[in-house]
Amino acid sequence: MSDSPVLHLAKDLISRPSVTPEDCDCQKLMADRLKAVGFNIEEMVFEDTTNMWARKGDTGPLFCFAGHTDVVPPGPAEKWHTPPFEPTVIDGILHGRGAADMKGSLAAMVVATERFVADYPNHIGSISYLITSDEEGPFINGTTRVVDTLMARNELIDMCLVGEPSSTHHVGDVVKNGRRGSLTGDLTVKGVQGHVAYPHLAKNPIHDAAPALAELAAMHWDNGNQFFPPTSFQIANIHAGTGASNVIPGELDVQFNFRYSTELTDSEIVKRVHNIFDSHGLDYQLDWTYNGQPFLTEEGDFLSAVSNAVSKVTKKAPELLTTGGTSDGRFIAKMGTQVVELGPVNATIHKVNECVKVADLEQLADMYYELLVNVLGGNE
Amino acid sequence: MSDSPVLHLAKDLISRPSVTPEDCDCQKLMADRLKAVGFNIEEMVFEDTTNMWARKGDTGPLFCFAGHTDVVPPGPAEKWHTPPFEPTVIDGILHGRGAADMKGSLAAMVVATERFVADYPNHIGSISYLITSDEEGPFINGTTRVVDTLMARNELIDMCLVGEPSSTHHVGDVVKNGRRGSLTGDLTVKGVQGHVAYPHLAKNPIHDAAPALAELAAMHWDNGNQFFPPTSFQIANIHAGTGASNVIPGELDVQFNFRYSTELTDSEIVKRVHNIFDSHGLDYQLDWTYNGQPFLTEEGDFLSAVSNAVSKVTKKAPELLTTGGTSDGRFIAKMGTQVVELGPVNATIHKVNECVKVADLEQLADMYYELLVNVLGGNE
Ligand SMILES: [Zn+2]
Ligand SMILES: [Zn+2]
Repeated sequence: MSDSPVLHLAKDLISRPSVTPEDCDCQKLMADRLKAVGFNIEEMVFEDTTNMWARKGDTGPLFCFAGHTDVVPPGPAEKWHTPPFEPTVIDGILHGRGAADMKGSLAAMVVATERFVADYPNHIGSISYLITSDEEGPFINGTTRVVDTLMARNELIDMCLVGEPSSTHHVGDVVKNGRRGSLTGDLTVKGVQGHVAYPHLAKNPIHDAAPALAELAAMHWDNGNQFFPPTSFQIANIHAGTGASNVIPGELDVQFNFRYSTELTDSEIVKRVHNIFDSHGLDYQLDWTYNGQPFLTEEGDFLSAVSNAVSKVTKKAPELLTTGGTSDGRFIAKMGTQVVELGPVNATIHKVNECVKVADLEQLADMYYELLVNVLGGNE
Repeated sequence: MSDSPVLHLAKDLISRPSVTPEDCDCQKLMADRLKAVGFNIEEMVFEDTTNMWARKGDTGPLFCFAGHTDVVPPGPAEKWHTPPFEPTVIDGILHGRGAADMKGSLAAMVVATERFVADYPNHIGSISYLITSDEEGPFINGTTRVVDTLMARNELIDMCLVGEPSSTHHVGDVVKNGRRGSLTGDLTVKGVQGHVAYPHLAKNPIHDAAPALAELAAMHWDNGNQFFPPTSFQIANIHAGTGASNVIPGELDVQFNFRYSTELTDSEIVKRVHNIFDSHGLDYQLDWTYNGQPFLTEEGDFLSAVSNAVSKVTKKAPELLTTGGTSDGRFIAKMGTQVVELGPVNATIHKVNECVKVADLEQLADMYYELLVNVLGGNE
């Protein structure tokens, strides 16, 4: 039995060791297939990152498949049962780095698109692909720069499916219809170093900061909402001290992170945190890193189209969640785009022996096809 | 002009590079001199540490000169104006490692003792020396073990002068008549490591501990008393975190130190701290290091004898203080001994270019002599 089109393309992509920011011509492979069914291809190289913007059609609505060709490093090769860049099917399961995150999704997108274009030659709107080779890396020269380019020429995506592995137990059991925002604070509290025997000559920054940190840890930030859990504050790192037990340290370093719902904005959080530190009279410096605004795709035609596409294949409506880490969806949502994430089961991603059921990839291709039918099939 | 006896002996001691736990025959040098005026010498070697117990007389009261022949390392030799182990007098100031801490004091003790024995051949009581080569080090095999040996044979010191550099601006301006206790706690607060995106699956030990640490930092421990400042609690070290901004750490390590007055005992402190951690429901481990009980020599005959000896030389009564770090006095006080510290100006100790005024060492020898007269001279 020869490989199905989805498995064939997935294997071809996995066999390319495209560790971030390498692409290893994965995008060219996709581009050749898309060009053959009428797509216009724009390669957008920024620094070390290869990006592709592919579009078929020049009218709205503009639907987009988004994803990445890069993979995280395979880790110790000897821990893999099969070589990480030699895609291998064992008992119906495809093994290889990127099988689930997210070369399997890319193969499913392309095959679904080919079928859809063949079945609906007169579809409405436009289909596009926003593919990067820097999703697993510093995400500086990837999706965010393509989005900037598109926004600069006012080419705005209306609806987007990111092929990230959203599923928990069965393919299609979870669709992510938003993500929390992420905001990191790097705090330095200044004191005066001294000897513990002469505390009046020193100023202990740990003592100064402890009540403020306790207040932040106990703070109720918001109630969340239908789609988001309450905003969460977590101190990730804290360090002070020379190592000696008789020295009062001169500085305290604290790093904390917010995962925040759409009930709060980053500027509100920043203001509340500064208010707390100020009210405790701390001498401090606080630097913020904005990792991404929260986004939410609310109930509506697009979300229904996604749900229906999944249900048609799995006979069960997907759960809509906004949990988990960030994804490039946050950058795309900046355009006002309705963004969802739908992809394979994420149990093995970023681990050794990453794998995905071949049948899941076939089902994923079917879901993507049904989604294209729902949003661009028109009234045929 | 040839060197005075005090300067001569101080130079001889300083020229021996007796960095802890080395003694370099400094004690032998002292022993030979003391033997010549009627002392019985006991060498007590414990592991790497050389100690000397010397005693003249077998009746009470038993007075003791205590001190150490070891010095801290000289540090970078090129920063010294004169070689650290080549004692050099420039403009009346003796330079060299140990000049102030405390080979100058040792020389002053020996010369004062020789004079006293010559002047008071029929003195009352006994004179003794308790000298170690491990005061600047881990203080495991030094004074504390000699004290244990003496206590085991019920040979208890009644009055002790430790030659530590107690003076601030002028020799004899400060006598230490006690020291605070020191107690160190090593705390580990246990949590559950996790990803900041899934806080409900983790337990942040920093968040758990912050209110307890804030409470400890704000705690009023006691009011101190006439001789002691209030008990002080200081967090010296705090560490948690993997370095990543998206990981909730699984453990928090905190090290804190108490300097406590005679208004509190170590067991009371330990009980209060555990109560606080328990009341906050922390999952923690706490290990205590007992660095020394507080001791206090209250107003009385001995303290008056010390004050008078100083005043006779400087024309000014010394200030009695209990501030500053710990010293071997804490181990000797365990015997019920009245302990004071009286030595040179401490401005340069443990630094490069350690030095002491030659005239101060002469004055110190005079003070030590007057003290011997006051406590053991009898009614002659
Ligand atoms: Zn991914
Ligand atoms: Zn010393």
